[in-house]
Amino acid sequence: MSYCLAIITQSGIVFASDSRTNAGSDMVNTCRKMYTLEKPGERVFVLLTSGGLSLSQSVMTLVQREFDQGSGLATCTTMYEAARHIGTLVRKVADLDREALERDNIPFNVHFILGGQIRGEAPGLYLIYPQGNPLQASEDIPYLQIGEVKYGRPILDRGVKYHQTTLEQATKYALISLDSTMRSNVTVGPPIDCVVYPTDDLKITLCRRFTNKDADLLEIQGQWERSLRRAITELPDISLTGTAPGFQAR
Amino acid sequence: MSYCLAIITQSGIVFASDSRTNAGSDMVNTCRKMYTLEKPGERVFVLLTSGGLSLSQSVMTLVQREFDQGSGLATCTTMYEAARHIGTLVRKVADLDREALERDNIPFNVHFILGGQIRGEAPGLYLIYPQGNPLQASEDIPYLQIGEVKYGRPILDRGVKYHQTTLEQATKYALISLDSTMRSNVTVGPPIDCVVYPTDDLKITLCRRFTNKDADLLEIQGQWERSLRRAITELPDISLTGTAPGFQAR
Repeated sequence: MSYCLAIITQSGIVFASDSRTNAGSDMVNTCRKMYTLEKPGERVFVLLTSGGLSLSQSVMTLVQREFDQGSGLATCTTMYEAARHIGTLVRKVADLDREALERDNIPFNVHFILGGQIRGEAPGLYLIYPQGNPLQASEDIPYLQIGEVKYGRPILDRGVKYHQTTLEQATKYALISLDSTMRSNVTVGPPIDCVVYPTDDLKITLCRRFTNKDADLLEIQGQWERSLRRAITELPDISLTGTAPGFQAR
Repeated sequence: MSYCLAIITQSGIVFASDSRTNAGSDMVNTCRKMYTLEKPGERVFVLLTSGGLSLSQSVMTLVQREFDQGSGLATCTTMYEAARHIGTLVRKVADLDREALERDNIPFNVHFILGGQIRGEAPGLYLIYPQGNPLQASEDIPYLQIGEVKYGRPILDRGVKYHQTTLEQATKYALISLDSTMRSNVTVGPPIDCVVYPTDDLKITLCRRFTNKDADLLEIQGQWERSLRRAITELPDISLTGTAPGFQAR
């Protein structure tokens, strides 16, 4: 399993991903799920992947080769076009592998998150499904997740607001969302990769890899747990009185 | 979908359940998923259910009929025996319905949580699977969940400790866990039923049903969100510096 997410606010985009990959419980490895492509001053892309590693690698091989040759993401004029292009490459890999996988009852499962900015355009953030169709993040839905998405979602639902959340806060939300997921599901694991992209930077300068021994990450985990316990304690006491009507078994 | 949970600590057990039931998206109804049986001073049981409503109702009909006749849970001498007995009744209903359901590709899905106390014994808390086998909560695993379990789990993993968490705190954890799940998944919905059982009470006196307009629940939701936002803001700032080795796409 994997867990990757990206949060878009009016000041930019935060990306974060775990690094655990496993094929059955006896084979747990570490593999980066975040890729960046940039032409500084002109265009920046960050890609996050979940699903079959063989499939995401095949797509990324095509993405990277094209980019190096000056085509594909290197020439798209809008983020929508870029997201559609990733979808086209996903479909190309589906043409190669889907039938053989399904013959052995293995689903064709690969998801991408694509975020970034092309000069002259606003930043954009998309999720690309295994079928190749793109979903765009918006002011109403300011974050996208792929992989093991449920554990880390409540904190995002409660806190992230497109117009109010700063990039610094969004970075903390992303780390807490990932940390909560790692804590509740052993198939999501460190290191955590993180990139923060401030609108109009058009290059990648803010990034970090957190291992499970990273002193700052441990400090954040500890302080977060203390804050949650304090928040629970500070909630008003709940009065529970008597038997509610119809509350007994039939 | 449903979400029910129970937390056991050294001072007792807290039970909480949502009330949404749906069969397809065009049929969303409200139905209680918590049942209590008691012989005050002698034995107390609380049951929570998830899965097919038709199946849990059939099991509960058997449970209640036996109890009223002075057999079944009315005569079990240990909580383990009571959990095993629920498993037996689940298997009885499986004998009635499983084959017909599976013929139409509907899984035989019904889960129970059973908690309570029999005089002379410590309180006990069990999860009974659709196959009828029981799983016991313990000091290491002080909570059990059924239904839509993922959204509400991180807060329990971070906060609930068998020896340290008070019953008042456990009640707040249960409500926050349920509220987080309702917020992230529309198929889990109010009212929330809640029972708190202090060890050796041997009767049920502390219970409450929270509708979605309950003033106390709204106050808790509001304060919780404010606390989370403050906790995020108070986390130390994260420094993100430069491009980590191997961080560019291949």
